[in-house]
Amino acid sequence: MGELSNEDLSSTDDVRTDAPLTHAKYVTFDQPLTLERGGELPEVRCCFETWGRLNAEASNAILVCHAVSGDSHAARHNQDDEPGWWDGLIGPGLPLDTDRFFVVCPNVLGGCRGSTGPGDADPTSPDGKPYGANFPRITIGDIVEVQKRLADHLGIQQWRAVVGGSLGGHQVLQWINRYPDAAKTCIAIATSPRLNSQALGFDVIARNAIQTDPHYADGQYYNQAQRPDTGLAIARMLGHITYLSVEAMEAKFDPDRHDPRQIASQFEQRFSIGSYLAHQGQKFTTRFDANSYVTLSMAMDLFDLGGTRLKLMETFDEASCDFLLISFSSDWLFPPAQSREVVNALTALDKRVTYAEITTNAGHDAFLIAKDIATYGPLVRERLRDPETRPEVPSETRLSVDEESILEIIPTGASVLDLGCGNGQLLAAIRDRHVEPGQRLMGVEVAQENLLSTAMRGIDVIDYDLNNGLPAFIDNQFDYVVLNATLQAVENVVELLDEMLRVGRHAIISFPNFAYRQLRDHYVTHGRSPKAPGEFDFDWHNTPNRRFPTIADVRDLLGQLNVVIDQEVFWDVDQGQRIEPDNDPNLNADTAVIAFHRESQPT
Amino acid sequence: MGELSNEDLSSTDDVRTDAPLTHAKYVTFDQPLTLERGGELPEVRCCFETWGRLNAEASNAILVCHAVSGDSHAARHNQDDEPGWWDGLIGPGLPLDTDRFFVVCPNVLGGCRGSTGPGDADPTSPDGKPYGANFPRITIGDIVEVQKRLADHLGIQQWRAVVGGSLGGHQVLQWINRYPDAAKTCIAIATSPRLNSQALGFDVIARNAIQTDPHYADGQYYNQAQRPDTGLAIARMLGHITYLSVEAMEAKFDPDRHDPRQIASQFEQRFSIGSYLAHQGQKFTTRFDANSYVTLSMAMDLFDLGGTRLKLMETFDEASCDFLLISFSSDWLFPPAQSREVVNALTALDKRVTYAEITTNAGHDAFLIAKDIATYGPLVRERLRDPETRPEVPSETRLSVDEESILEIIPTGASVLDLGCGNGQLLAAIRDRHVEPGQRLMGVEVAQENLLSTAMRGIDVIDYDLNNGLPAFIDNQFDYVVLNATLQAVENVVELLDEMLRVGRHAIISFPNFAYRQLRDHYVTHGRSPKAPGEFDFDWHNTPNRRFPTIADVRDLLGQLNVVIDQEVFWDVDQGQRIEPDNDPNLNADTAVIAFHRESQPT
Repeated sequence: MGELSNEDLSSTDDVRTDAPLTHAKYVTFDQPLTLERGGELPEVRCCFETWGRLNAEASNAILVCHAVSGDSHAARHNQDDEPGWWDGLIGPGLPLDTDRFFVVCPNVLGGCRGSTGPGDADPTSPDGKPYGANFPRITIGDIVEVQKRLADHLGIQQWRAVVGGSLGGHQVLQWINRYPDAAKTCIAIATSPRLNSQALGFDVIARNAIQTDPHYADGQYYNQAQRPDTGLAIARMLGHITYLSVEAMEAKFDPDRHDPRQIASQFEQRFSIGSYLAHQGQKFTTRFDANSYVTLSMAMDLFDLGGTRLKLMETFDEASCDFLLISFSSDWLFPPAQSREVVNALTALDKRVTYAEITTNAGHDAFLIAKDIATYGPLVRERLRDPETRPEVPSETRLSVDEESILEIIPTGASVLDLGCGNGQLLAAIRDRHVEPGQRLMGVEVAQENLLSTAMRGIDVIDYDLNNGLPAFIDNQFDYVVLNATLQAVENVVELLDEMLRVGRHAIISFPNFAYRQLRDHYVTHGRSPKAPGEFDFDWHNTPNRRFPTIADVRDLLGQLNVVIDQEVFWDVDQGQRIEPDNDPNLNADTAVIAFHRESQPT
Repeated sequence: MGELSNEDLSSTDDVRTDAPLTHAKYVTFDQPLTLERGGELPEVRCCFETWGRLNAEASNAILVCHAVSGDSHAARHNQDDEPGWWDGLIGPGLPLDTDRFFVVCPNVLGGCRGSTGPGDADPTSPDGKPYGANFPRITIGDIVEVQKRLADHLGIQQWRAVVGGSLGGHQVLQWINRYPDAAKTCIAIATSPRLNSQALGFDVIARNAIQTDPHYADGQYYNQAQRPDTGLAIARMLGHITYLSVEAMEAKFDPDRHDPRQIASQFEQRFSIGSYLAHQGQKFTTRFDANSYVTLSMAMDLFDLGGTRLKLMETFDEASCDFLLISFSSDWLFPPAQSREVVNALTALDKRVTYAEITTNAGHDAFLIAKDIATYGPLVRERLRDPETRPEVPSETRLSVDEESILEIIPTGASVLDLGCGNGQLLAAIRDRHVEPGQRLMGVEVAQENLLSTAMRGIDVIDYDLNNGLPAFIDNQFDYVVLNATLQAVENVVELLDEMLRVGRHAIISFPNFAYRQLRDHYVTHGRSPKAPGEFDFDWHNTPNRRFPTIADVRDLLGQLNVVIDQEVFWDVDQGQRIEPDNDPNLNADTAVIAFHRESQPT
């Protein structure tokens, strides 16, 4: 009753303390740092922590970038250590496996947990005052620049991966934009190419609260008895609401909304949400510096890799890494649509990318929560797998009859996009048969278990609804686009077929034949909705199928779409035999595979 | 470029000025007002405006309740008058027609625009100081109590209607809870039975900002040089973001996000959203009192008519009025789901209610915006129509063949729920044939144009997705539940049929027969997906139909559901003739009407 267990909600604050950074290392770069927006910092100190060992080739280093209120202590170093903010992801045997990798986590420039920030002495100040509000305006680019120096310092020429969520995601995207060859893999979680206007508005209000706090003193409060704690607490309360989903808040606070836990606080505590926010706000002021909050939120607000696809394509054009992007369905601060913007640019550039939107109620905070890490962690692990080792999921799976036919039709070396790729077994079979370097094999799926299965086979897969067409891809991007045993689930058939012909030089579809003898018999003899073993083995009232294509119907439609049929393969799978084209497949086949293409159109 | 036209977004502030209330009237109630949460106000002054004339029977009065930052000036009184906040809804010939009605709009208790509030002298203060933060905690109930005294004062025993949006919606719902016979009609727009946890959280933060402002002085700032303007501005900025939808903000601020319009302000103006918020925040402080903001937001936060359906049913159990509820799709502050909670309770109580969720990008503010008023205004107008006059839409429409059959089956005087009621013509025909007082006729629809058409015929209709069942209704609530020419669009067929049998003593379904001769011919002869004139006259790849019921299939399913068939009517509409039950309707009929019921189950 009124008991607000912090573990249930945001993990961010609840493991953080003012505990000293006992494992922190420091390095000072005395070459001045020229800043993107003007000015410079004469020297920069970087505080960082590491886990694991750098190998001889310096090829196993992973950079972890923290979010606004984070720090270098991403994970425990041993069992007695203070908890880290990403303990679920980093450690021996975990996705960022400290037994294999050398993990590095620096405190960001402008922060207040060891690296140079507004609390440091301003070298231009005659009496050694801290920078305060005079700390120069820094950008994510500047933050990355310091991290680059750290990499040089540690002898790391290329990261095995750069990984981050939220503001950490902004940093990894900036890394690749600025240093396209700097990493083999870029993992960007719960992030965006820039904040949307609503998120920007909230940040503006938060900074206003801090900067109008009576004790703000233009940021020169370090020697005062009072700091701008009220403004900072208010800023933090606001942030908290944005990190949580509405559902999570309702589940937590509605049952006892009028039942606040009493805490010592100047803030209102009439409601349970009120005392929770007061508690979170106050805790924050004991461990975070208001000037840093202003500095870092401004850097996040200025961050802008592009608002259009073209601009984003320019941004990532030269990237040589592969990408993994993850978003969360109930994250309304960094909504999935914003991750999709980045994905659309990457696919159009023909980069290797996997994208998954994880279904969760936990809002933006999901990227830090154990339950959600358990869901997306395997995607991270797979992305970092040593290519010499087997994928998590063995490829030796039994293909269906139509998949076998499709495999025969597709020549070795062809690039393939598989729409509705299921568990990815067809793509895996294509790859295992033979794959050239640079030969693109990619799946599109929307069911979460299929996304994960496909990724676990080591196949790139993106989370997209086919009924929206294929806006992610450019013209003639693939040799073959496959729609396998999915046609009956598609709402916008003509649009999708057109899109397949736009994106692929060749298209292959396979589908269950609705005019199959057994189905006709059932209908004609019994006067009931056609039903037979196979894809149409459902009742009229609960079939998941949306469309009921017959071979004759599909041929008619393809004719209207002006395509050239390359090959047709028909099966009576139920009887286990192939049906020749002259043996009335529309009657005798229950499954059809049709390969076709469109003659080049004059533009 | 950077030009932030206020008309494009929130109308609330942008018509409000400090203009004196030239048409305001005042009345002081010197009988002490006992407050719900304890204490009393020795006397209460009420400031109000009126439009139109009260008729001899005092039966044409409409109470308009304003939102947090509103006041008595709901509309212009003449062409030269200052604009009002609901000019689109109130005036000669408008939905709240001042040529027919006597419209009354009082400033709320606790406000700062004429009625008693924190800025008034505290009679218990020896030196006549204002109440300030000592203004007693008031509730929506207290606000309503003052309005009740105003009604008595004006000689109004029963309102023709009580109308309000947002906080105004809270007031009208409270009116009906407290005085169940006080109005003939209750119109509640963009509102809720209580704030959700997220909205509550934002209010708490806003109050914290005000109360921690250095010039707040425990609310005794009236004689100070400085008021808590900063805190109030911050509170208002926060409110603004919550009133806007994300889409509206993006459309407005993204194109020139880095291009702020410069205004004189202490607040940050790095971004266009920033200067907009600064402008809005500052304008607000010139016309609104911080103590009133605290008082009214707290009243809104304490407002709680119930979080469960049972509690809400208790709340409205004795209401004798009819209801109109309106919500807006992009309103995330008072989301549509919260209006549906109230609707669910009202329908379960068998009250007369119409509910529509208006599709709009304008967010919570939509209830004040001209374009959206143009959409929902007709619903208001229809609700206030004199029953002696014709509905907006004439009932003399040609019924379809199955509708005629259904009309014959349903006895006069029977209560009817029509699921997927289309434009409402069947229900209107039932009513026009004969209707008893209290005979309930109600429609369920989800397409906006159908909702509006049905309402314009004077039929109660609620905006619900049938695939969620019929949770709004209780067991055996209607004599007949009709599913007319809709079965083929339903995803969850069995669940819906079960629900129909739960809610209705009898059920009637009509549907196109998928086993109709012509469809079979097409399929068997041509081997193509069945297609024939009528409901199945679509191509396999773009048919909107989700289900393809045959008469035999449906009879099978009804058998499994243990129902008793009361009557069957079959038509070959295409040939214009009735098909007798012994003439193989499964083959010869293209349309079927089946009436059935379930024998009472032992509980």
